Amino acid sequence: MMVSLNGSLLPADEARIASTDRGFLLGDGLFETMCVRHGSILRLDAHLERLRRGAGFLGIPVPADDLPSLLGDVLSVNGLVEASLRLTLTRGRGPRGVLPPAAPSPTLLITSAPKAAPLPPAHCVIATTTRRNEHSPLSRIKSLNYLDAIIARQEAASRGGDEAILLNGAGRVAEASAANIFVVEDGKLVTPPISEGALPGVTRAAIVARGAVERSVAPAELSHAQGIFLSSSLGLREVLSIDGLAVPAMPADVLTELSGALWPE
Amino acid sequence: MMVSLNGSLLPADEARIASTDRGFLLGDGLFETMCVRHGSILRLDAHLERLRRGAGFLGIPVPADDLPSLLGDVLSVNGLVEASLRLTLTRGRGPRGVLPPAAPSPTLLITSAPKAAPLPPAHCVIATTTRRNEHSPLSRIKSLNYLDAIIARQEAASRGGDEAILLNGAGRVAEASAANIFVVEDGKLVTPPISEGALPGVTRAAIVARGAVERSVAPAELSHAQGIFLSSSLGLREVLSIDGLAVPAMPADVLTELSGALWPE
Repeated sequence: MMVSLNGSLLPADEARIASTDRGFLLGDGLFETMCVRHGSILRLDAHLERLRRGAGFLGIPVPADDLPSLLGDVLSVNGLVEASLRLTLTRGRGPRGVLPPAAPSPTLLITSAPKAAPLPPAHCVIATTTRRNEHSPLSRIKSLNYLDAIIARQEAASRGGDEAILLNGAGRVAEASAANIFVVEDGKLVTPPISEGALPGVTRAAIVARGAVERSVAPAELSHAQGIFLSSSLGLREVLSIDGLAVPAMPADVLTELSGALWPE
Repeated sequence: MMVSLNGSLLPADEARIASTDRGFLLGDGLFETMCVRHGSILRLDAHLERLRRGAGFLGIPVPADDLPSLLGDVLSVNGLVEASLRLTLTRGRGPRGVLPPAAPSPTLLITSAPKAAPLPPAHCVIATTTRRNEHSPLSRIKSLNYLDAIIARQEAASRGGDEAILLNGAGRVAEASAANIFVVEDGKLVTPPISEGALPGVTRAAIVARGAVERSVAPAELSHAQGIFLSSSLGLREVLSIDGLAVPAMPADVLTELSGALWPE
């Protein structure tokens, strides 16, 4: 598989990062994961807008390269039309210390993978080991600081689950370890607002634009839901159970219709 | 300058990291910064214990190598006796996705730098952009997820300050962006407990062992303190002002005595 590193295409195992890269040393960077269908990157503008917003906030310059072309190059060189892409942007090399260099020279890595099988419906746990930090702007940026999600996913695995649902510091539902969460209540789709520590997911925004309601969700509501599913850029995933309690099956057609609209065949 | 990468000594600019390293892609790792005086690594056992505790919690195997020897090798090859060392341990390469591989092959990087000049006394701000997450076990691990500290330090710089003090989600004082905080009240040294989101600093523990008191600190207390200083593995740093309000000078001899005890000349 070929990757793009700072604008050059090269074999993945030749793509090496400087050991002084602040992405490696301090998690100082961000990323996007995108879905490719029939050779088109779905919701590319929304992904690039989120990237630029996050980079602007962190003060990481976005390379002048034509990002859509670079993404397209990675797909073509690998002969992929049904795929996923990951774009990683870090602040690049820096001297020791927390404060970033005044004129960073960022690192841009683009990798791809063939389309994976859809994720099967998930048994979930509510993470008890960690919480999302709704007081940090990082909860609104897809940053490289992913250890809370990793810890939560490890907890899910250790408890026999597939995914973890994270609460925020106030004890309300925020999101899953690598997905947003939607709950069916009174026939409506409900999802926690960004202010609760939910990542502003690109798919989440598309579902909200189709009428889902943003409001706070208490953990107790999950046990009364008429259905629950998770959303990420790569697809929707029905929730079968939470902490061992069965969740009702999603109303017929809701997931099929949403998936069909958001990931056109 | 030579560095140690997975047990091999090589020039820093030849030490390259795989672009699939989870430390780079997800901040999946931890580090230690250590102070070297007269060729000895100060409080080495405490640093290695914290590293092993964090690695154990995250499920990252600590390489079987003799870590003190590897650290010593980096000092000798660079001819350093007054220096600092940084040891970075990541989960190494992994497949895509949040869940770690079952049998990770970690990456171990050790770098060094000559002794730096002591940090001058600091003008501080109380960060308004972000908070420490006392609900996350990451607040008790020196992980690679350093973006909250970076954001806080950028805020300090943008407001003309040298360092940022971070509050926790409950609005109480946790620590500085890369240091613990000590406040003099009624002639006693007071520092926020670990449960408030303070990193369990090695120097912090040494000061507590010498009689400093651990208890919650409200931001308002900072303006009544008889003195404030910051502690890190590399030294103590007096606080001159917070949010533009002058802080009384530290009582004579307290810093000199502590520094002399913790960093013997």
